[in-house]
Amino acid sequence: MENNMEKSVEERIRSLKGRLIVSCQALPEEPLHSSFIMGRMAVAARQGGASGIRANTAEDIREIQKETHLPVIGIVKHNYPDSGVYITPTMREIEELMSVKPEIIAMDATGAMRPKGVSLAEFFSQVKEKYPDQKLMADCSTIAEALLADQLGFDFIGTTMVGYTPQSQGNRIEKDDFAILREILCSVKHPVIAEGNINTPEKAKRVIELGAYAVVVGSSITRPQLITREYAKAIEELEKGD
Amino acid sequence: MENNMEKSVEERIRSLKGRLIVSCQALPEEPLHSSFIMGRMAVAARQGGASGIRANTAEDIREIQKETHLPVIGIVKHNYPDSGVYITPTMREIEELMSVKPEIIAMDATGAMRPKGVSLAEFFSQVKEKYPDQKLMADCSTIAEALLADQLGFDFIGTTMVGYTPQSQGNRIEKDDFAILREILCSVKHPVIAEGNINTPEKAKRVIELGAYAVVVGSSITRPQLITREYAKAIEELEKGD
Repeated sequence: MENNMEKSVEERIRSLKGRLIVSCQALPEEPLHSSFIMGRMAVAARQGGASGIRANTAEDIREIQKETHLPVIGIVKHNYPDSGVYITPTMREIEELMSVKPEIIAMDATGAMRPKGVSLAEFFSQVKEKYPDQKLMADCSTIAEALLADQLGFDFIGTTMVGYTPQSQGNRIEKDDFAILREILCSVKHPVIAEGNINTPEKAKRVIELGAYAVVVGSSITRPQLITREYAKAIEELEKGD
Repeated sequence: MENNMEKSVEERIRSLKGRLIVSCQALPEEPLHSSFIMGRMAVAARQGGASGIRANTAEDIREIQKETHLPVIGIVKHNYPDSGVYITPTMREIEELMSVKPEIIAMDATGAMRPKGVSLAEFFSQVKEKYPDQKLMADCSTIAEALLADQLGFDFIGTTMVGYTPQSQGNRIEKDDFAILREILCSVKHPVIAEGNINTPEKAKRVIELGAYAVVVGSSITRPQLITREYAKAIEELEKGD
């Protein structure tokens, strides 16, 4: 039974290979914040051809699992006063996620210290000790971080944080035809999930073509306030005489 | 009082000039069908810089008015067995809309017969007789239809149906640098609202630049299933060896 369960998770994860994962997240301050809405967003994503969902909080994931039965990359975003790490920073968020058992749990792997001064390596071994079968994804921002995560034994290496940390500032996932992704792809043993600023179908196609295991697209599908902003900005250019 | 109310509607409509209107619609068969979700979508649109909302059904409009206070172009989509006209086809839909009084009511103006064999001209005069102060928008698909709607006295001429009727098949709003829009703009007296397949910020900017009074953008902001489809299609091209 245990084996079947495991095999099923493996199969579900394999169904993501070469495919699109849609990130359905809305933080409390965002207009679509609501597990009900995220569940419907995930249905929309599935209808459009998504093979998996990335989602935040056990509550949202539970709703998404109920509504879509798609494999999920789960995270819990939480801000602690003593650390800049906010994507699944502590065991508390791991426990929350284990209550809904997403196929993959993703966490910050940028090398910044977690709350109470816990390092990524320490945290990784705590999680693996308690949940040895849980697949884990490392949200990295640089090649060095990707290499470390790969050595630690993360099941998936993600480019989620490229451009979003001080050490990756000015870099962008798409820069020089995805140079950072290509470098990571040829340096690590574990499969790489492309994520972070993938905001056009062409970019999504290109990262799969380059060899990413899967691609995660978020805001340009599920954050209408940001999509609207692109339209409003284009129109405002006219007023500035551009 | 009556005058103040009218003036206020006029002012609210003027606030749309040169601006973005976001269409927030989800039909019963769509994953986001829910007045609650459409209300939150409208909040997201306002947050992103939308100046108005186009919406379907009194229920959705009521929620959107409560959540955003933005001016609304209201429609009611309803299919009748004896007509292909489904955007505000009869007085029943007008009455439904008048229960929430959107600043503008839009209706099919493609020249097709409405239910019970009522022509556009007959319907327009029925509506104007009962609600002389209500601003009306004509959803047209061809230049001839736009000219007729203009002569009938519609307050706004819309390109909503270009490409979506038998008589406009093969045409697209953006074709030949928006040839149909430019022709309508220099042929009609009333302001023109660009709508229909405006799915990039560049197109939205261009139609305003050409002189459209406002631009309505819908699916590419508020239909995540269609946005997802574009991504999934791009990735699928790889499997076809493209």
